[in-house]
Amino acid sequence: MNYGPEIEVAIARARADVSNLHAELVRYGLVIWTGGNISARVPGAELFVIKPSGVSYDELRPENMILCDLDGEVIADTPGCERSPSSDTAAHAYVYRNMPAVGGVVHTHSTYATAWAARGEAVPCVITAMADEFGGEIPVGPFAIIGDDSIGVGIVETLTGHRSRAVLMQNHGVFTIGKDAKDAVKAAVMTEDVARTVHISRQLGEPLPLPQSAIDSLFDRYQNVYGQAPKGAMK
Amino acid sequence: MNYGPEIEVAIARARADVSNLHAELVRYGLVIWTGGNISARVPGAELFVIKPSGVSYDELRPENMILCDLDGEVIADTPGCERSPSSDTAAHAYVYRNMPAVGGVVHTHSTYATAWAARGEAVPCVITAMADEFGGEIPVGPFAIIGDDSIGVGIVETLTGHRSRAVLMQNHGVFTIGKDAKDAVKAAVMTEDVARTVHISRQLGEPLPLPQSAIDSLFDRYQNVYGQAPKGAMK
Amino acid sequence: MNYGPEIEVAIARARADVSNLHAELVRYGLVIWTGGNISARVPGAELFVIKPSGVSYDELRPENMILCDLDGEVIADTPGCERSPSSDTAAHAYVYRNMPAVGGVVHTHSTYATAWAARGEAVPCVITAMADEFGGEIPVGPFAIIGDDSIGVGIVETLTGHRSRAVLMQNHGVFTIGKDAKDAVKAAVMTEDVARTVHISRQLGEPLPLPQSAIDSLFDRYQNVYGQAPKGAMK
Amino acid sequence: MNYGPEIEVAIARARADVSNLHAELVRYGLVIWTGGNISARVPGAELFVIKPSGVSYDELRPENMILCDLDGEVIADTPGCERSPSSDTAAHAYVYRNMPAVGGVVHTHSTYATAWAARGEAVPCVITAMADEFGGEIPVGPFAIIGDDSIGVGIVETLTGHRSRAVLMQNHGVFTIGKDAKDAVKAAVMTEDVARTVHISRQLGEPLPLPQSAIDSLFDRYQNVYGQAPKGAMK
Repeated sequence: MNYGPEIEVAIARARADVSNLHAELVRYGLVIWTGGNISARVPGAELFVIKPSGVSYDELRPENMILCDLDGEVIADTPGCERSPSSDTAAHAYVYRNMPAVGGVVHTHSTYATAWAARGEAVPCVITAMADEFGGEIPVGPFAIIGDDSIGVGIVETLTGHRSRAVLMQNHGVFTIGKDAKDAVKAAVMTEDVARTVHISRQLGEPLPLPQSAIDSLFDRYQNVYGQAPKGAMK
Repeated sequence: MNYGPEIEVAIARARADVSNLHAELVRYGLVIWTGGNISARVPGAELFVIKPSGVSYDELRPENMILCDLDGEVIADTPGCERSPSSDTAAHAYVYRNMPAVGGVVHTHSTYATAWAARGEAVPCVITAMADEFGGEIPVGPFAIIGDDSIGVGIVETLTGHRSRAVLMQNHGVFTIGKDAKDAVKAAVMTEDVARTVHISRQLGEPLPLPQSAIDSLFDRYQNVYGQAPKGAMK
Repeated sequence: MNYGPEIEVAIARARADVSNLHAELVRYGLVIWTGGNISARVPGAELFVIKPSGVSYDELRPENMILCDLDGEVIADTPGCERSPSSDTAAHAYVYRNMPAVGGVVHTHSTYATAWAARGEAVPCVITAMADEFGGEIPVGPFAIIGDDSIGVGIVETLTGHRSRAVLMQNHGVFTIGKDAKDAVKAAVMTEDVARTVHISRQLGEPLPLPQSAIDSLFDRYQNVYGQAPKGAMK
Repeated sequence: MNYGPEIEVAIARARADVSNLHAELVRYGLVIWTGGNISARVPGAELFVIKPSGVSYDELRPENMILCDLDGEVIADTPGCERSPSSDTAAHAYVYRNMPAVGGVVHTHSTYATAWAARGEAVPCVITAMADEFGGEIPVGPFAIIGDDSIGVGIVETLTGHRSRAVLMQNHGVFTIGKDAKDAVKAAVMTEDVARTVHISRQLGEPLPLPQSAIDSLFDRYQNVYGQAPKGAMK
């Protein structure tokens, strides 16, 4: 299977990104054992790259990442294709099929975010970093289990038109989306961070609400000004 | 003492596994100082290998792991036999004698699991990762102290016929079993992870229950489909 | 742009300090991703050095730190000037303009301190280490968002004449000041440590108050006796 | 100053132990910045070795540890004597003068232990590891501040005749003693571990009490049987 030089370069980059970015999940303590997974869309093609199932973080390499089409089917005769892709592949594929601006998807069971998810409770937006990053609360998606498209449907229905790039799937864990895989990883890292901070704040009383106008202005500024260049926000 | 080439190879592998796998307990923060211990059955023989007592994690080597028979007696004239085996050796031996499908046993005092154990409370199954891994709650075993077979009896009585590979021994800590030592270590890592997540979730309210049918279907799928090959579950 | 040999040496030292000290924020878990920032005044000049915006901690080097005047304007034709300075630069600049004894400023969203800030609650002084370091409670500053001088004003109004070198900006995070950047980093590290310890203490009851006379005598001694030489406290 | 070959060897060993053992305080997260200190008695002499004041953990070397007499006075003309010893030196010296079986002393502000200390509450003995190590609760000592012998008096009065090698000094932190410095470090590590586990257990209900007879038999066994040789317990 050869997709021509441009797409092959894009596939190689997606393999490297997906393989390397898992180190950030480990660094920030978002995953244990073989849990958690990252995927990246291949720009310009109906393809994405995802982590293999049940493989240890120390053994991830670009060449054992798995190339799939947007139905989540493994592409034959490509590196890594002898392995099974992440058991969450169907959910990633559903997101790519239905949210064309999404370039990366991350799934974790990070502790504090999953604790909110187990209660089916959104994380309220009470700190400015959360307004910057998510523009409001981190919402809860429906209870859905592996086996059909119900997880994918839940992610897409919850996040379409929502400022948040993260959804807490009830009793399950977190899915985040981004313009690319790194952006989705950042969302996963920030989700756990704000889920933890707001949890701890609420342990000893009720956090003060943020005015909606402040949330709006922080979100707007952060999407357009922060960092070294304007961000291509997923609008 | 020589057991013939096949068994000697199996002993060497068990020594290496037990020695190396302790690094996972350290990596995931399940043990401190010299606490915690792992053992591995030697397939094809009435033997198992276990960590020496009171030895620091930095000093563990295959050749100082200790070979025992299924009564927990150290085998004379084998590497490491000049040292005392883990003070929990009798409990490990009791499990191997009474649960023939068990190939590995792990014991820790990991923080959150021990916190549940100190209240004598099972960890309820409210997150899908827990349904996958344990098929329901993580049960509590009886209060029992070192000195006779009462810890081993408590483990075996609690886990026989139970989906969970982990038991919270009351006021004490965790014992996990697995088809091999790595599987038991995974169970120990997952036990602490879910004990922590469910604890944190309950700090701010009551987690939503998982439907029993969802627990059943997740457990069934995970035992048979997840990862790179069907798992030899301990049925 | 050349400021003459003495100032150039001071600038080089400030660049190295600011670049290196960020490692302490990472080591103590006060920051994630690109969050948090440190600045250092250039002694003898109307200048300070600050971290660039949105740049990863692994990529910080003395030569990509950014030199600013006390209005927070980037100095043209200096190393790093092609990048944007930290989005909190205006707040740092305001502090340097209005608190001449301050030689370093640090900003983080460290978890426990931000949890107190989200409730708008000062950390009460109930442990001797806090009396040593802060001489009393860690106060709360006003709610203020990026865009004008309101954050800087809030920091300066709260900390002027206060023993504490740390302020919890409501719903936001922590700003600390020090006689130099290292001293401000120490204040940031200690702020999170005492915010965490007092939080945990209060989870199971009310900490015992410290007598004011003990607070006073601990603070006085620590500012004048502790360490290898009398400290140039910011009085 | 030369104490003769035997004592000089013992001093060199104490310098190395004190310098190296601080790494365990860092590894287990018991200290931050320059907080915490370890000392070791020099066997056969009226001397002990202690950490210098306000020096970073990365800079500790055997030759900059400080040799003191049992009044806490620095011995002139010995390596490191140009620096100030730990500001807690008087408390360490008081313990050595009044508890001849003590060979090592450790002081930390570790988070969970200090949280109990801030409420003036002993850690109850509800887990078997605590019965093993401390033989009962970890007691609280009086509120006392630096400046005279009151901290040392509080430690000695609380721990004399007590099974516990650890005392929570009210509103302050932990002091532990041991037959040597390593034993005192182990006690400091275990103190934080059990303070954390029991805290977390109590967050969601009341831990079950341990029968006194079980505590007694666990403590007795651990002091006499555990590890590779009978321990020279400090009786």
